Amino acid sequence: MGKTPEQILEIAKKILNYSSVLLVTRTTIETFKLLKKEIRNIEFSSISNIIYTPLDIPDDNLSEGITVICAGTSDISVAEEAAITGYLMKNKVRKIYDVGVAGIHRLVSFKDELNRSNVIIAVAGMEGALPGVVSSMVDCLVIGVPTSVGYGTSFKGISPLLTMLNSCSPGVVVVNIDNGFGAGYVAGIINRVIKRGKST
Amino acid sequence: MGKTPEQILEIAKKILNYSSVLLVTRTTIETFKLLKKEIRNIEFSSISNIIYTPLDIPDDNLSEGITVICAGTSDISVAEEAAITGYLMKNKVRKIYDVGVAGIHRLVSFKDELNRSNVIIAVAGMEGALPGVVSSMVDCLVIGVPTSVGYGTSFKGISPLLTMLNSCSPGVVVVNIDNGFGAGYVAGIINRVIKRGKST
Amino acid sequence: MGKTPEQILEIAKKILNYSSVLLVTRTTIETFKLLKKEIRNIEFSSISNIIYTPLDIPDDNLSEGITVICAGTSDISVAEEAAITGYLMKNKVRKIYDVGVAGIHRLVSFKDELNRSNVIIAVAGMEGALPGVVSSMVDCLVIGVPTSVGYGTSFKGISPLLTMLNSCSPGVVVVNIDNGFGAGYVAGIINRVIKRGKST
Amino acid sequence: MGKTPEQILEIAKKILNYSSVLLVTRTTIETFKLLKKEIRNIEFSSISNIIYTPLDIPDDNLSEGITVICAGTSDISVAEEAAITGYLMKNKVRKIYDVGVAGIHRLVSFKDELNRSNVIIAVAGMEGALPGVVSSMVDCLVIGVPTSVGYGTSFKGISPLLTMLNSCSPGVVVVNIDNGFGAGYVAGIINRVIKRGKST
Amino acid sequence: MGKTPEQILEIAKKILNYSSVLLVTRTTIETFKLLKKEIRNIEFSSISNIIYTPLDIPDDNLSEGITVICAGTSDISVAEEAAITGYLMKNKVRKIYDVGVAGIHRLVSFKDELNRSNVIIAVAGMEGALPGVVSSMVDCLVIGVPTSVGYGTSFKGISPLLTMLNSCSPGVVVVNIDNGFGAGYVAGIINRVIKRGKST
Amino acid sequence: MGKTPEQILEIAKKILNYSSVLLVTRTTIETFKLLKKEIRNIEFSSISNIIYTPLDIPDDNLSEGITVICAGTSDISVAEEAAITGYLMKNKVRKIYDVGVAGIHRLVSFKDELNRSNVIIAVAGMEGALPGVVSSMVDCLVIGVPTSVGYGTSFKGISPLLTMLNSCSPGVVVVNIDNGFGAGYVAGIINRVIKRGKST
Amino acid sequence: MGKTPEQILEIAKKILNYSSVLLVTRTTIETFKLLKKEIRNIEFSSISNIIYTPLDIPDDNLSEGITVICAGTSDISVAEEAAITGYLMKNKVRKIYDVGVAGIHRLVSFKDELNRSNVIIAVAGMEGALPGVVSSMVDCLVIGVPTSVGYGTSFKGISPLLTMLNSCSPGVVVVNIDNGFGAGYVAGIINRVIKRGKST
Amino acid sequence: MGKTPEQILEIAKKILNYSSVLLVTRTTIETFKLLKKEIRNIEFSSISNIIYTPLDIPDDNLSEGITVICAGTSDISVAEEAAITGYLMKNKVRKIYDVGVAGIHRLVSFKDELNRSNVIIAVAGMEGALPGVVSSMVDCLVIGVPTSVGYGTSFKGISPLLTMLNSCSPGVVVVNIDNGFGAGYVAGIINRVIKRGKST
Repeated sequence: MGKTPEQILEIAKKILNYSSVLLVTRTTIETFKLLKKEIRNIEFSSISNIIYTPLDIPDDNLSEGITVICAGTSDISVAEEAAITGYLMKNKVRKIYDVGVAGIHRLVSFKDELNRSNVIIAVAGMEGALPGVVSSMVDCLVIGVPTSVGYGTSFKGISPLLTMLNSCSPGVVVVNIDNGFGAGYVAGIINRVIKRGKST
Repeated sequence: MGKTPEQILEIAKKILNYSSVLLVTRTTIETFKLLKKEIRNIEFSSISNIIYTPLDIPDDNLSEGITVICAGTSDISVAEEAAITGYLMKNKVRKIYDVGVAGIHRLVSFKDELNRSNVIIAVAGMEGALPGVVSSMVDCLVIGVPTSVGYGTSFKGISPLLTMLNSCSPGVVVVNIDNGFGAGYVAGIINRVIKRGKST
Repeated sequence: MGKTPEQILEIAKKILNYSSVLLVTRTTIETFKLLKKEIRNIEFSSISNIIYTPLDIPDDNLSEGITVICAGTSDISVAEEAAITGYLMKNKVRKIYDVGVAGIHRLVSFKDELNRSNVIIAVAGMEGALPGVVSSMVDCLVIGVPTSVGYGTSFKGISPLLTMLNSCSPGVVVVNIDNGFGAGYVAGIINRVIKRGKST
Repeated sequence: MGKTPEQILEIAKKILNYSSVLLVTRTTIETFKLLKKEIRNIEFSSISNIIYTPLDIPDDNLSEGITVICAGTSDISVAEEAAITGYLMKNKVRKIYDVGVAGIHRLVSFKDELNRSNVIIAVAGMEGALPGVVSSMVDCLVIGVPTSVGYGTSFKGISPLLTMLNSCSPGVVVVNIDNGFGAGYVAGIINRVIKRGKST
Repeated sequence: MGKTPEQILEIAKKILNYSSVLLVTRTTIETFKLLKKEIRNIEFSSISNIIYTPLDIPDDNLSEGITVICAGTSDISVAEEAAITGYLMKNKVRKIYDVGVAGIHRLVSFKDELNRSNVIIAVAGMEGALPGVVSSMVDCLVIGVPTSVGYGTSFKGISPLLTMLNSCSPGVVVVNIDNGFGAGYVAGIINRVIKRGKST
Repeated sequence: MGKTPEQILEIAKKILNYSSVLLVTRTTIETFKLLKKEIRNIEFSSISNIIYTPLDIPDDNLSEGITVICAGTSDISVAEEAAITGYLMKNKVRKIYDVGVAGIHRLVSFKDELNRSNVIIAVAGMEGALPGVVSSMVDCLVIGVPTSVGYGTSFKGISPLLTMLNSCSPGVVVVNIDNGFGAGYVAGIINRVIKRGKST
Repeated sequence: MGKTPEQILEIAKKILNYSSVLLVTRTTIETFKLLKKEIRNIEFSSISNIIYTPLDIPDDNLSEGITVICAGTSDISVAEEAAITGYLMKNKVRKIYDVGVAGIHRLVSFKDELNRSNVIIAVAGMEGALPGVVSSMVDCLVIGVPTSVGYGTSFKGISPLLTMLNSCSPGVVVVNIDNGFGAGYVAGIINRVIKRGKST
Repeated sequence: MGKTPEQILEIAKKILNYSSVLLVTRTTIETFKLLKKEIRNIEFSSISNIIYTPLDIPDDNLSEGITVICAGTSDISVAEEAAITGYLMKNKVRKIYDVGVAGIHRLVSFKDELNRSNVIIAVAGMEGALPGVVSSMVDCLVIGVPTSVGYGTSFKGISPLLTMLNSCSPGVVVVNIDNGFGAGYVAGIINRVIKRGKST
């Protein structure tokens, strides 16, 4: 936010001195190109405008249990931010990116698949009803992420934020508007505690 | 609003001079008792705090086609206001008062029944997702009525109002918070035009 | 919303595989030019920034009964979005685009013409009084569409939205700010039910 | 506001030491009874909860030119506050208390009567369209007074306030919600300047 | 608003067919250059972005009595819009453009000059206290015009708007944010009524 | 919400037909007394106005891992609602009810104790900084519950709600204002999944 | 806030175990009567609903330099809360309780007296212009305290809060609505640092 | 704000006629380059976009006692505006620019250093908890400056503004969003009064 590509490069190099994981959200392809010159092992997600270091471990060693769901094109950017964050915390994230309340029968048909999750991230703009309806179908935590896409009375995410805070289904919590990173991070720490439990 | 029982009595008598229909919303049992002394043919709905004149025509002469749906106890008051208004416009109003998005499977099972309507009034507070989900299941108009019940960020009906205005399903229109009367009235004039069409 | 012209082209082609109707709102002339290369039968409304497929049926086969009214230049874009949507649902939409409450005598003189409608779409920004005043002159449904044009305390459409929700005349319902599509769609399904009624 | 009847009595006596006019708004019948014991020449308007000293001059000496208009029962309290204030500034205030935009034809029929004013105070709650429509019919100043009566999205007067600020007709100014006193006072000083002009 | 220079030219020519006065607010120098090609007698105010037709009458025939006051650079644009509007209604508008509440002693020294007005337009952004303080010094009407200049909690004019609506001094009325035209127009019709009074 | 004690009694009896757990929030001592007459095994928490059925299992069989923290008297009501809900889901909930950011050194000293949790519920009104600061000290999930206690710009919980949504520490999620039940429920389902993991 | 008189008594006794100063704001005469039974040396300010322990030192030992100013009856309650708080921090607080911007000449005449302060607390509701105007007259800090008295668009203190935050005069800071205690406390710590400076 | 570089140059030259100090905030490098041509002794802070005249006195003659603290990159711009303002009032401002509540242990370790201040300026965006937590560690005044950086529900500084106004710690006052200048100015006048006290 307000940081120049040069500032980000400097910060990135500092981080990689003591960590193998780098994650830069809300960035640009220009910044990626600059970083790429000096940092080898990074990738760019053009959908979510994220720079990150792919993991160096086999897929089979990733943990199952996190699902990210959203209704379509407009919300995928934020959904991917959540998914990549979860992935960087060593999770194999399941993605369902074309299911929403406007196609309620299709959504209902995902009940069993959704119930195989430890935690679900539901991303939605405009009316923001997805997390509540998903929560009514499962018995694990649903993290609602309101998005700022939309027009008129969606008020840049306030409308879906309120919908999620007022969910009739009690298993829904909320993070800030467009905060895919926060949702992915929270899903990651929950899944880590669960995994730790298993290995106890 | 702000009118004394005596003022309402006077207005009621004036109305009944030129009309056989009387409808007083947002009133009290005390006002009803006062009116009852001078106006014979009125009833009181304690659930919706409405005074009205029951119709003088057989049930079979009422028009089918209007359905009122809400999730439960908290919203029934407004739902009944809509239903009675529709009834006074000579409609046999179907009522589904215990179905909401928190029980999404049950709601989905009503698809066929809902599709037998010309127009549906969906009443909901808090997250207010019901009209949008109902609309995704039918191909007639859904009138959303946000209610002011709730707490915290439901903001006395603003949250469900925004949800309904932002519905992903395009067949939803909205009336003012708690405005069961307006919804019933609109349903009534739509059904009247349809009926008129039929008899052409 | 956030979709690239290429994404829209792809989606458009998919839609035309199973439907003869295409409607793309909030788009650009650039996107139209791209689509035009691969899709023959489309037109562009530069006033409302809409791409659509003109109907393949004679005008006389369109249904009467939908009127769109607005006060002038600023609101025509949204009014046209409503009108084209209604047209695509096989209606001959009557348009009155130069009548507002600032010229109250002129508006009142349209009473008879307005009363020939099954449903009226009234588009207005700033004070947003048009739907309420129109409703006081007719006995059919009026769908109010608030627009975001204006400055200062019109708050990008919030002021006319509130005016319409608070209309003294009970026959007014409201859709989201600038949602001409939604208004046209709702008018279309109402007129369809009426027509269906007639043919019963 | 927050003042006890005893405090008001004390203040009232102080005022009457140097002025023959007393005006206490937003007060109660209890306060009036207390004041009446010690101050002879005061009256109480139970509709607007105002204590005031009736003028000691013949009606014919009052100035013409101020009109107060509102649609009905709910807004009369504020309208009377404006009217009494104008009266105390030595004006014969014309009152039209049963005309609103919901009866647009009736309102339009008042055109000539309204045009006999120097300044018009239009009081309205809920949608608040009255001042704008009145202004479109006259060529003098219209002072809009939004009222807090209503429910739902009238938001205790915010909705009519916004409507009036966004009036399409340029001759409308606005005072605070429920501020009948301010409107009456402004009408009074305008009429005084006009009168002064005449006598020059 | 949203009108192209070509549309404005067309409208301008239509207006000049039946009126000798043209006033285009919120326009640009580009539009002025286009109009200038076809309409001879127009001028452009670069401070307020207004195109207008200068009056064809001697200054001495203009009416006195309107004063426009503001604190400085930021608000002059709106103040000039008010002043030009008043001028086009045949008034000689007095301008005080460098006096604000931040220099309270200087403001107070203008008391006599301000009291020579029939009506004062006070333009202010940010805290918006100017109209109230001016009103405490005079006994004529003060029209407050909140401006959208500023940052942070001035909220694009909401803060000064609220200040003016809540003015402790009762002789203040308010128009929409940045609505210099409205304020000038209202001042003009008040001064016209006063003048008419004088000539009676 | 709006339910009479009699309605609650009826609903309670229905619930106990198929469940051994009853939880009634936002209720009153009067309702408790009525229920107590017909339902033996219930208790009343006067601090949180909750009626509930105490568990029938030894404390040692409850799961560890949930902590509820708040700063003091004003927030205990909501904190207890969360704690009882967690308890009814068979958890031994640790309570820290007298630690806030106003005593930052004391709060910091709880670091080790807090880190023994699987999930922490942090309840706070007014500035609402507690969840963020707690989150900066631990590496498990923190559920923030804003409370409506306070005055002025706490806006009945909006201020702490925004603070929590904007937490600099990424491990914070939020539920509705005063929604202790939702927070407790979410903590319960997270702890259940963890336990299930352990027993796998 | 929400504390019972008994809870307050208990807390008060605890405080007096380690401090000689007790200050309870937003309390009631009933609570005072209860405390008085067990705590000898306390007084009650009925204007500001405060219980406090009067200081045990001669007036001449109090520090000069703090002034509290407000316009009148409605704001005195909050002003007194500030004044008593300052007094309890061993300051002789000067009070000017009948001067406001509505009487601008009178206010200006206080210039010299105000300039004898180290810090000024200016309390104001409704338009809230007092702190800004006072600040334009002095060169010390002005602490603005918005009050919630008022009606309509004063929005329970939001209007004066915004006015103060947007003050044109740069020497104004703001505390929460009605937070007389906070303003008095801040004035006290500033004056303490100054005094400490003097004695260095 | 809205002033052209040329206007600023002219104003700057006027100011330097009677003062040796120039401070232009919210400006650009282009304006600086223009001014530099005609005014020798000015510097530009690219971090805070400020043009100012460096002081002509030795560092040892500056007063100690003002500290500016913020958490990082995003808020430094506003922090520097405060620091330069304080410096121009002849203070040696201590800067702590990399400490926030997200690293609570590090923040707590600054306790002694912070307590050496007469007044602390704490700059924070998003959750805005820094001023309150700092205030809980010191016994001098803390001036909170909310910043508009951030996204989603930080609402361009409203969220941190509310947090600061609701601070649990009573020694916090607030200035407008992004108003580093105001905070620096207030710190300057407080420190000046303290210094004056010392020299008495």
